[in-house]
Amino acid sequence: MQHITNSLLKDINSPDDLKKINEKDLPQVCQELRDFIIDAVSCNPAHFGASLGVIELTVALHYVFNTPYDKLIWDVGHQAYGHKILTGRKDVFHTNRKYKGISGFPNIFESEFDAFGVGHSSTSISAALGIALAAQRNKETTRQAVAIIGDGSMTAGQAFEGLNNLSSSKANMLIVLNDNNMAIDPNIGGLSDYLVDISTSHTYNKIRREIFRGLEKFKITGPNAKDKIVAINNSIKSLLTKQTNIFEGLNIRYFGPVDGHDINHLVKVMKDLKDIPGPKVLHCITKKGKGFKLAEENQTAWHATGAKFNKETGEKIEPEEVKPKPPKYQDVFGHTIVELAEKNENIVGITPAMPSGCSLNIMMEKMPDRAFDVGIAEQHAVTFSAGLAISGLVPFCNIYSSFMQRAFDQVIHDVALQKLNVVFCLDRAGLVGADGATHHGVFDLAFFRPIPNLIIASPRNEHELRNLMFTAQQANMGPFVIRYPRGNGSILEWKNQMQTIVIGKGEQIREGDDIAILTLGPICNKTEQVCKTLEREGISAALYDLKFCKPLDEELLHQVFKKHKKVITIEDGTIIGGIGTAVTEFMVEHGYASQIKKLGVPDRFVDHGTQTELQHECGFDKKSIYKTAKQMLD
Amino acid sequence: MQHITNSLLKDINSPDDLKKINEKDLPQVCQELRDFIIDAVSCNPAHFGASLGVIELTVALHYVFNTPYDKLIWDVGHQAYGHKILTGRKDVFHTNRKYKGISGFPNIFESEFDAFGVGHSSTSISAALGIALAAQRNKETTRQAVAIIGDGSMTAGQAFEGLNNLSSSKANMLIVLNDNNMAIDPNIGGLSDYLVDISTSHTYNKIRREIFRGLEKFKITGPNAKDKIVAINNSIKSLLTKQTNIFEGLNIRYFGPVDGHDINHLVKVMKDLKDIPGPKVLHCITKKGKGFKLAEENQTAWHATGAKFNKETGEKIEPEEVKPKPPKYQDVFGHTIVELAEKNENIVGITPAMPSGCSLNIMMEKMPDRAFDVGIAEQHAVTFSAGLAISGLVPFCNIYSSFMQRAFDQVIHDVALQKLNVVFCLDRAGLVGADGATHHGVFDLAFFRPIPNLIIASPRNEHELRNLMFTAQQANMGPFVIRYPRGNGSILEWKNQMQTIVIGKGEQIREGDDIAILTLGPICNKTEQVCKTLEREGISAALYDLKFCKPLDEELLHQVFKKHKKVITIEDGTIIGGIGTAVTEFMVEHGYASQIKKLGVPDRFVDHGTQTELQHECGFDKKSIYKTAKQMLD
Repeated sequence: MQHITNSLLKDINSPDDLKKINEKDLPQVCQELRDFIIDAVSCNPAHFGASLGVIELTVALHYVFNTPYDKLIWDVGHQAYGHKILTGRKDVFHTNRKYKGISGFPNIFESEFDAFGVGHSSTSISAALGIALAAQRNKETTRQAVAIIGDGSMTAGQAFEGLNNLSSSKANMLIVLNDNNMAIDPNIGGLSDYLVDISTSHTYNKIRREIFRGLEKFKITGPNAKDKIVAINNSIKSLLTKQTNIFEGLNIRYFGPVDGHDINHLVKVMKDLKDIPGPKVLHCITKKGKGFKLAEENQTAWHATGAKFNKETGEKIEPEEVKPKPPKYQDVFGHTIVELAEKNENIVGITPAMPSGCSLNIMMEKMPDRAFDVGIAEQHAVTFSAGLAISGLVPFCNIYSSFMQRAFDQVIHDVALQKLNVVFCLDRAGLVGADGATHHGVFDLAFFRPIPNLIIASPRNEHELRNLMFTAQQANMGPFVIRYPRGNGSILEWKNQMQTIVIGKGEQIREGDDIAILTLGPICNKTEQVCKTLEREGISAALYDLKFCKPLDEELLHQVFKKHKKVITIEDGTIIGGIGTAVTEFMVEHGYASQIKKLGVPDRFVDHGTQTELQHECGFDKKSIYKTAKQMLD
Repeated sequence: MQHITNSLLKDINSPDDLKKINEKDLPQVCQELRDFIIDAVSCNPAHFGASLGVIELTVALHYVFNTPYDKLIWDVGHQAYGHKILTGRKDVFHTNRKYKGISGFPNIFESEFDAFGVGHSSTSISAALGIALAAQRNKETTRQAVAIIGDGSMTAGQAFEGLNNLSSSKANMLIVLNDNNMAIDPNIGGLSDYLVDISTSHTYNKIRREIFRGLEKFKITGPNAKDKIVAINNSIKSLLTKQTNIFEGLNIRYFGPVDGHDINHLVKVMKDLKDIPGPKVLHCITKKGKGFKLAEENQTAWHATGAKFNKETGEKIEPEEVKPKPPKYQDVFGHTIVELAEKNENIVGITPAMPSGCSLNIMMEKMPDRAFDVGIAEQHAVTFSAGLAISGLVPFCNIYSSFMQRAFDQVIHDVALQKLNVVFCLDRAGLVGADGATHHGVFDLAFFRPIPNLIIASPRNEHELRNLMFTAQQANMGPFVIRYPRGNGSILEWKNQMQTIVIGKGEQIREGDDIAILTLGPICNKTEQVCKTLEREGISAALYDLKFCKPLDEELLHQVFKKHKKVITIEDGTIIGGIGTAVTEFMVEHGYASQIKKLGVPDRFVDHGTQTELQHECGFDKKSIYKTAKQMLD
């Protein structure tokens, strides 16, 4: 790593400071910013490759545009570390993604430079168009709205919806297409090839450069000089590449491709573009992980760093405790779907761009023709699964709980209404930790419970996850939702002999007389520990794992309410609408009148932190469960 | 209208019958089919223009393809009348959209020829791709999957997601692009212009024809003859039009444009295409309403016929009773937003492709620069609204309740999380009637209630709708959802002086001692009539209009539960998760133990019929409310 002698970054605490830097020194600023991020993330695990890939873009944007008056909207937002560091958050950057620290994503409540909150992909064009048209209406005619969007995010339908609408407007808006041919995993689909075609057309680039030199020589000037150059550029390109790209096809002026790591050229180009009215796209070729060799070479592995690492060697520094750990739920899914698919030839797997995140990559390697990565395209993933299911296959469609919000209509309209055998595996259900408010998968129980025909289950451990998957793949089950959390399970010997679970049947885990505690999902295990503590204090708590949010185990609930006047429900999801609500409705419908205390996520958005910190904040960690039981029995 | 002497259609009750017809007689079949639909719809109001526009496509598809073995997926599905009539439902077609009759959309439970259920737009490519890939896996190598999709549906992101995924597959799949440059309202956005550019390139078409004739002359034959022709065709086209269209850009083979009303040519082209493996697109130019002059001339008005009409003159035959009727809720919205926008210059209006359906067209005419039709693009509509709101504007984003399911994530992620002042007007909330299961807006209360920061209200009449809109546009309200039903209100003099409504405050409509009835929305009015009936029988029922599903009027509820041991809740939405659930949770949380009976839509999908028929079936029409009250008091 290059040693910087005269540090420039230390004096940059705002874009105004950055603008004082001489253009020729910008490469050094980029290098320092890159080092700062590598340094910070090596000590505090976070997203990594994306921010390194846009260092030059970030510096150029803040150097050229008048932020925060001009609005930068970072699609997805996990690439905005450089942006955060340049906009006054350098000194608190060590708190990134930590409880009460700064968010790992742009957040309008954190900084006026964060023009629009993000986290899920492909919203930036829509938001920037709204901001650009509002600027017109508000007579802020010089305001610029800039969406910075990766090629991966371009595969999601919403980006296309935004583009299509943008093309019919006169908004002063710039789209910076950050083209690294990657999302988290390599990009899938035609669009990706399409962009590569354009950007790797060497002949085109060569001739384009020569033409531009020619134009400079001929000194095309005057009020429309840039327009003229642009027009020539576009026509040359379409002639040379024999294709119009999607932007031009939608009448959005297209510039590029340019080297996204050439800071001085970027500054020059952006200065030019700033003065061109209307919608326009700047296509930048970047490398995810740029400047950190290992991250450049293995972009998926270095998308986010799960642990501290040695910034010279890249070696992961494991926490000292290295005793064997139970597997991650995602890996139990990944191995189990392969195990099931080996016996049931109808099983196929679907992921919208999360093969390594949900561990479907295990199946993709072993059975490449039976596992589909459909790109960042949750809506398509679900309806595509419906098409597979209606033809007799059994698709396991794995979508993070919070991303499933994107395909809610398709679950209702294409799967539930037609009672199709799609198995939805909702990874990252519940509080996810450091990714924060945009990523918590806390609404799924509430939004799926009102939908007819759905079976909704959550396993309390790895064995149960496997049993649920085994059960769900059986014929004519209909739509089956299995939600499980981010992180590790609780059983070292996770690979049990799988068994069928009776649909809608819960399980009594502990007997008890003083109070009944009903749980859904792995929170059952912590609750069991609480029950043991209570027992030591002479309180006898019955514990039930309901397993199914829908259908409810009515027989079990009748037993509970016949016996217990004090009942606690616990779920890793919103208190409104989930299993606690279902139990409450059951009780009232059947004329019982016990006291119920519902624990779960309260009616507000929850920020980032560790899962334990957040469960404590929400009031369903072990301490809170204990307290609640004691209070109810006082 | 042409008089048919030798009717062919009368003997066609299946695609097998159709296939017996001589090719030269197909134009007559088309004419008869068209007449049949005009005849039927003139007596039984339904969708109209779309089915007339695809008569020739429909006949050609069933003539060439081996249905139901081959799978036709009709995007949206309201153009599938011809398909229904040709596939055994001619004799029951008079029951179209009627209670217990056939559905206005393809429905897998109705016919094996309906390969995939539809209703919402832009799912066909995803579903067909699933079916095509499943066919490969199931070794059904000759099976064809055909998606028939309109250019309007192509603007929705999901269609693009499907295309992008299709392009990287080898699925044997045909997309028939039914290009009429219309959705319900004229198409918006760049894609629309783009397709027109391609299809109206006369030079291209002329030269293409000549080249094809040339090829015929040279008798290009052999195993790859068609491929050669295609390759030549594509390269000619891209050279001539100087652009690659979106399909070719995504490596999907593109054929056309062809005249979608030339049945014999369509048959020929489809026969050729059937043998070409891999993904392909046939671009057909059609006219919505083709063959019925008035419908051709005014496509939006004749998208669906609201009343019986004279099939010779097109004159609407109004039902005999012509006493003045209260306005439709949608028109109250349409006029009121203009009235508000005249005083509050920050107000703007947004609709995803439903200007006439939600009456935003009134504002689009009067204030064209302040009302945006963004195309069939609910996700974009919501995030775009968020971008407008974050810039200080007050967007009224009007989306049908069931289509709002498409933008659920955007409401959470972009609006609620950022507490932005977007007013969501949910038209068609509750049971919508003849459009049936795909269109009932019955889930919104349940899926929005768990989302933090949302205000959720429903007016019981036009005055309240206006008051809610007046209230919602005031500064710093945050996200505000107003749901109201399809159809007419209850007040002739609907244009009141608007007043601010206190957020979260309900209203007592009638005093009573024996039972309390709590309602949300216009069902309050019918309930009031029931209360009067009950009164005549000596039963004194208190009636409350809760107005807000969130926040709840806790003060009012305390009063209710302190006084009443019998409580009924009524809502035009799912019993699970809506206002009844909210009231139940409140009761249990505060230690009351009244008997609650929740009326609303039960936990199953509800088919089509009139709104009254369906409310009866679900158990919340006047009779059912009366019965419930009586039973509880017995």
